[in-house]
Amino acid sequence: MPLNSVTASIPSSEISHNRVWNFSAGPSVLPLSVLEEVQRDLLNYKGEGMSVLEMSHRSKVYGNIISDAEATLRRVLKVPDNYSILFLQGGGTGEFAAAYLNLMSCKSVREKQRKLGRQLACDYIVTGGWSKSGLKETKRLGGITNVVLDGVKSAATGEVTYNSLPPVSEWNLGKPEETAFLYYCENETVHGVETPANYVVDVVDPLVPVICDMSSNMLSRPIDISRFGAIVAGAQKNMGPAGVSIVIVRKDLLERDETDPEITRNIPSILDWCYYDGAESMPHTPPTFTIYVCGLVFKWAENLGLEALEKLRETRSGLVYDMIDAHPEFFHGLVDKKFRSAMNLVFTLPTRELEAQFISEAAERNMVQLKGHRNLGGIRISLYNAMPIEGAKAFVIFMKEFYEKNVQ
Amino acid sequence: MPLNSVTASIPSSEISHNRVWNFSAGPSVLPLSVLEEVQRDLLNYKGEGMSVLEMSHRSKVYGNIISDAEATLRRVLKVPDNYSILFLQGGGTGEFAAAYLNLMSCKSVREKQRKLGRQLACDYIVTGGWSKSGLKETKRLGGITNVVLDGVKSAATGEVTYNSLPPVSEWNLGKPEETAFLYYCENETVHGVETPANYVVDVVDPLVPVICDMSSNMLSRPIDISRFGAIVAGAQKNMGPAGVSIVIVRKDLLERDETDPEITRNIPSILDWCYYDGAESMPHTPPTFTIYVCGLVFKWAENLGLEALEKLRETRSGLVYDMIDAHPEFFHGLVDKKFRSAMNLVFTLPTRELEAQFISEAAERNMVQLKGHRNLGGIRISLYNAMPIEGAKAFVIFMKEFYEKNVQ
Repeated sequence: MPLNSVTASIPSSEISHNRVWNFSAGPSVLPLSVLEEVQRDLLNYKGEGMSVLEMSHRSKVYGNIISDAEATLRRVLKVPDNYSILFLQGGGTGEFAAAYLNLMSCKSVREKQRKLGRQLACDYIVTGGWSKSGLKETKRLGGITNVVLDGVKSAATGEVTYNSLPPVSEWNLGKPEETAFLYYCENETVHGVETPANYVVDVVDPLVPVICDMSSNMLSRPIDISRFGAIVAGAQKNMGPAGVSIVIVRKDLLERDETDPEITRNIPSILDWCYYDGAESMPHTPPTFTIYVCGLVFKWAENLGLEALEKLRETRSGLVYDMIDAHPEFFHGLVDKKFRSAMNLVFTLPTRELEAQFISEAAERNMVQLKGHRNLGGIRISLYNAMPIEGAKAFVIFMKEFYEKNVQ
Repeated sequence: MPLNSVTASIPSSEISHNRVWNFSAGPSVLPLSVLEEVQRDLLNYKGEGMSVLEMSHRSKVYGNIISDAEATLRRVLKVPDNYSILFLQGGGTGEFAAAYLNLMSCKSVREKQRKLGRQLACDYIVTGGWSKSGLKETKRLGGITNVVLDGVKSAATGEVTYNSLPPVSEWNLGKPEETAFLYYCENETVHGVETPANYVVDVVDPLVPVICDMSSNMLSRPIDISRFGAIVAGAQKNMGPAGVSIVIVRKDLLERDETDPEITRNIPSILDWCYYDGAESMPHTPPTFTIYVCGLVFKWAENLGLEALEKLRETRSGLVYDMIDAHPEFFHGLVDKKFRSAMNLVFTLPTRELEAQFISEAAERNMVQLKGHRNLGGIRISLYNAMPIEGAKAFVIFMKEFYEKNVQ
């Protein structure tokens, strides 16, 4: 979209509550209509005489809330029948451990291991902070890991930067018969690196289940679920509030040899996907209210459709990237164009002082949470599903004015 | 309180929202004033222009919310300085595993184990479904367990019933030098068995850290925290919505020998108390909104004070137990008077048909969630902190009328 067609038209429904433009990387902006519904029903959910916050997870009403949430997500993402959808707790950090522990216990992986005669390795694609943390957790728990790639290494200095992926020809993939699974994070929230859809599954041998952390880009574009072993995601970006993790896992990976005494010994129940799968995500009290809000977000997403959401994400991020690309000497994008994220946009300004001023002047215009992650610095703005196009427009107008005022 | 002084006076503030009397065992009734505050601030928290549901956990505003919640709980429960308060995820089920894994890794326990020359045992007091699940989880994870007591065994039939505790003289406590810790659940939500305050810590050797699951009676009476190694609790009874677990742990139990390679290998980060303690409960995104609501409940509890809350719980449950005791041939209390719970009151009626009728007629009077747990049957009503005295009164009036109509 050419900048001259951009106007800061903020729909009146958005400003009626004096709300800010919230560019937080997560927890993050939720659809206003969802918040309004939550607010309306907060004391008395649909005539039940109680709040969802107070509702027994064993009540019929709540049973419908959680099964509707699951069914809606299944429709939106076109999840095939041979995949289970689970609602767990513990976010990304929980799922790092859960992915490793559950995969190493599944029948086909253990059979492969028996044939090999030694412990299988776990392939990790490291594209930023989150995949790095996943790798670290697996190591902590005694896993043998194989790093397929670790950012991009400077030939001159040997320094590793998480701003791109090396060519596939340089990937150090494990041999399929020696590899339990491959793990990657499709959108790196901290480093702003997003791997294009199917980019990884197109490369990996089908004998190796691909486990993908989609915490920060799930629901923002169509996915071909059937190509993944499991997809794990914390909800608090595009899907709802913090406190629930969503796992979509191929059912054959939940099969276990129950006569094997080693199977469950290392998996605490709380991380055991089978424990949840057998009880429709409620072997014990789930985070009831959080799942309820997610369910409303899923419905909101269904009404728009994944194709429309993808178009919106490209439009939103395109507006900002166009401005970055127009003035690269002032707005310095940190990520290789091919892999830059439509969700988390990271860039720097010429000086630290200008960055501080940028953040402070943005705040005066009710644009908040612009500061880069503490590990990276600079500016980061997150443009999740619920960010109206008008938020991105207002930001770009601000960028332009700031640029014109401060360019040398 | 004599029944003739009981009237069904429902304060107008309670009925203004057409709310029911919610006797759910959890998630359960929350203070109306808390819900009203949550509702009021749902779209725009104190002028921040966003909902707490959307708020970055790294923002200053949220930092204040979580540290206020911790500080308030510390004041209300008089938590000594040498105890940490942690906010985790995973409820009781998560804490079963966490208690075992963390305790077995702590310096003093490992030193004791080194002296003994073999794996220490974990003492379990089994008074109902929840402590039984805790025992099971520790066994699953490879723990050596010693059952101190397992309900009450009939001398005639050998059948075990969870309706009382055997005399202390019959407890099979492990030798202190062979025992890593002792675990019990102070209030059994399913079986309605509540162990009196200090009853267990008075018996256990001070060399053995006592780990207590107080999920369903925390904040309902004063506790002498200093007598416990750790107290763990899911929030969704007296403390807030489902989705957060609270751990109060003596700091020396978080000390570890970091040179010991076995230490963290078996503890997924998500269950590692040290991981949270080092990062003020935010090594990663916490269940932000749930903790916010808990913080409001803690303030509500602080305004009343634990002594008043204890008086309220005794009054509320006393009303119902008085009616049970007055007509024991009709309302058959399932638990020994000495150990019956003030939180979860379980009883049966003469026939299944009468129980169904009782539940259905109660529903007509807007009293819901009366059905006993699926493992136990009968009637269960839960009278947590946020249940107004008027709710218990209304229930007792209904009991009396039902009795008079149906007694033979």
